[in-house]
Amino acid sequence: MPTLCEPSVSVPEYVVTMEDTLEFAKRIHAGKRQLPLALRLIQNTGVRKRHIVQPIEETLRHPGFEERNRRYEIESKKRCPEVIERALKNADIVPYDIDAIVYVSCTGFLMPSLTAWLINNLGFRSDTRQIPIAQLGCAAGGAAINRAHDFCLAHPGSNVLIVSCELCSLCYQPDDDGVGSLLSDGLFGDAVAAAVVRGSGGTGIALERNASYLIPNTEEWISYAVRSTGFHFQLDRRVPGTMEPLAPVLRNLVTTHGWDIGNLDFYIIHAGGPRILDDLSRFLDVDRKMFRHSWATLTEYGNIASAVVLDALRRLFEEDTSMPGATGIVAGFGPGITAEMAVGSWTVGAPRRTD
Amino acid sequence: MPTLCEPSVSVPEYVVTMEDTLEFAKRIHAGKRQLPLALRLIQNTGVRKRHIVQPIEETLRHPGFEERNRRYEIESKKRCPEVIERALKNADIVPYDIDAIVYVSCTGFLMPSLTAWLINNLGFRSDTRQIPIAQLGCAAGGAAINRAHDFCLAHPGSNVLIVSCELCSLCYQPDDDGVGSLLSDGLFGDAVAAAVVRGSGGTGIALERNASYLIPNTEEWISYAVRSTGFHFQLDRRVPGTMEPLAPVLRNLVTTHGWDIGNLDFYIIHAGGPRILDDLSRFLDVDRKMFRHSWATLTEYGNIASAVVLDALRRLFEEDTSMPGATGIVAGFGPGITAEMAVGSWTVGAPRRTD
Repeated sequence: MPTLCEPSVSVPEYVVTMEDTLEFAKRIHAGKRQLPLALRLIQNTGVRKRHIVQPIEETLRHPGFEERNRRYEIESKKRCPEVIERALKNADIVPYDIDAIVYVSCTGFLMPSLTAWLINNLGFRSDTRQIPIAQLGCAAGGAAINRAHDFCLAHPGSNVLIVSCELCSLCYQPDDDGVGSLLSDGLFGDAVAAAVVRGSGGTGIALERNASYLIPNTEEWISYAVRSTGFHFQLDRRVPGTMEPLAPVLRNLVTTHGWDIGNLDFYIIHAGGPRILDDLSRFLDVDRKMFRHSWATLTEYGNIASAVVLDALRRLFEEDTSMPGATGIVAGFGPGITAEMAVGSWTVGAPRRTD
Repeated sequence: MPTLCEPSVSVPEYVVTMEDTLEFAKRIHAGKRQLPLALRLIQNTGVRKRHIVQPIEETLRHPGFEERNRRYEIESKKRCPEVIERALKNADIVPYDIDAIVYVSCTGFLMPSLTAWLINNLGFRSDTRQIPIAQLGCAAGGAAINRAHDFCLAHPGSNVLIVSCELCSLCYQPDDDGVGSLLSDGLFGDAVAAAVVRGSGGTGIALERNASYLIPNTEEWISYAVRSTGFHFQLDRRVPGTMEPLAPVLRNLVTTHGWDIGNLDFYIIHAGGPRILDDLSRFLDVDRKMFRHSWATLTEYGNIASAVVLDALRRLFEEDTSMPGATGIVAGFGPGITAEMAVGSWTVGAPRRTD
């Protein structure tokens, strides 16, 4: 059974605390009508600090979409290789063993995708499949796991590398006072994450079932306005309430699998914001502590988009309390509004010989 | 075995002939150094006419990236539904039977992808998987077929809808005199295409094997410069020579499958330009007539990016000469430089009951 191995995650060197963010907001929105709302949104995120790829003063300047995207290219090429190498090592795999790369990122746009550069520069085979996904936003972390799972089912014995490169700070829009923008200013952080799904062998989550769900008629609730200044994050005020329709979807999926959503051993949930975690806890009747990995990601790194589920999963591995057979769920949420879900159980494999 | 059913294709109502293009070029580049090059590039495309979504005078104006992308959204929502409905009908399938949608397009960027809107508006199930791919350019037509194939292998009995929406005219850059831009002004056309890969039953190409190949260290040869004005097509002068390294890759794939590349019954090849088809014909020792469907697409519609292979395939269906067991190859080429290839054989299925 395809196994999702230990992710590796890297956050950049520049740190912004909640106090920093509040201070910047006071300065930037000084005397403006939206200041109280901005401060309240920032405080409510529960994000204590975030990591970003450039010093804050540079981040606050907008040098134009072209320069922003060039920065994305430079930073992604600088930061992905080391994270990928660790993910391969975690999975006891070398680049030559990889059959497909799923690269997810919604914070920069390259054509060709970074997959081509990665294959050329990190020793992957020339026949590695490239599956770049840019348009699933935060749900893309779950989608990447699920598409990797599918690929291993379609091509038994193959291995898939997942890379999530989210440099959200490069989408900061200083002139945008929309609520989505105000919220994102205090919520999103930068991170690069990678993980391998091994077709056979490996220790981690044996992927047993995956599913997707689109909440009907919500495609405008989370979106990008694509402008000459780049991507502008737009959020409908109804988004925080979306766990109510999604909770039964998660419950049904787990029930169909013969398990009980209230009684799983681990929950790797997209930490889009505190309300998501609070609401899911309530609607699914799951102790808040069971979401501790997602809470830790949110508090320490902010919402790192598609990398959240991989980082929460990394924390599960590091805690090292999972027993073989332990059951769990992974769920990413994002624009659409889309949920990408996987259920699986903890498996401990013998290292595979890679010769 | 998953079967690629008859595609449906639609081209827009505004027509630009080669004569029109030459005339516009003479006017636009009047007195400039690049005029002779522009005229030669246009004449060499072999494109007799193209179809575009707006009148030519409107196409030649650049109203800004935001308005361009808004136009992409309007036009894709206007044009995709009818094409999709025909593709479903061709496959004897209703929206409820579809388990995943692979949406490929490199000429506009929406977040969420159009997949969400399609699911909400055309009667697809809420649990339909969304696989939007924006960063494989012209190779995405082949990639879409291959990922649909994989999905059906991973989830036996499922059905996948492929949609390719390429509105290349919305990427026209009037102020760009680079050779890539000059060439694209005379080469690319607009089209919307769709096809269903049925997990069981259906008439068309039974997909037997797929593969991908990246020519080492060519990732900068075809690319977008992402600017405040949108996507700028960039082309290296070495691109026209890429069939020499790709021909043996196609040959090996077919040989591995137990067939002879020089002796297949059909060839559905990305008509990126005349040189691709001429060179492949020569390197593979295949009669030029065997590429007639690709030639027809190029001549009548121009290079319609990821939609080329689906349109060439539509022409194969319309010719109606394929016999059960006829063998063939589908190959898309694009940035990376990436080849996405599939081999399969003609199959005639009984219509599946969809109740």
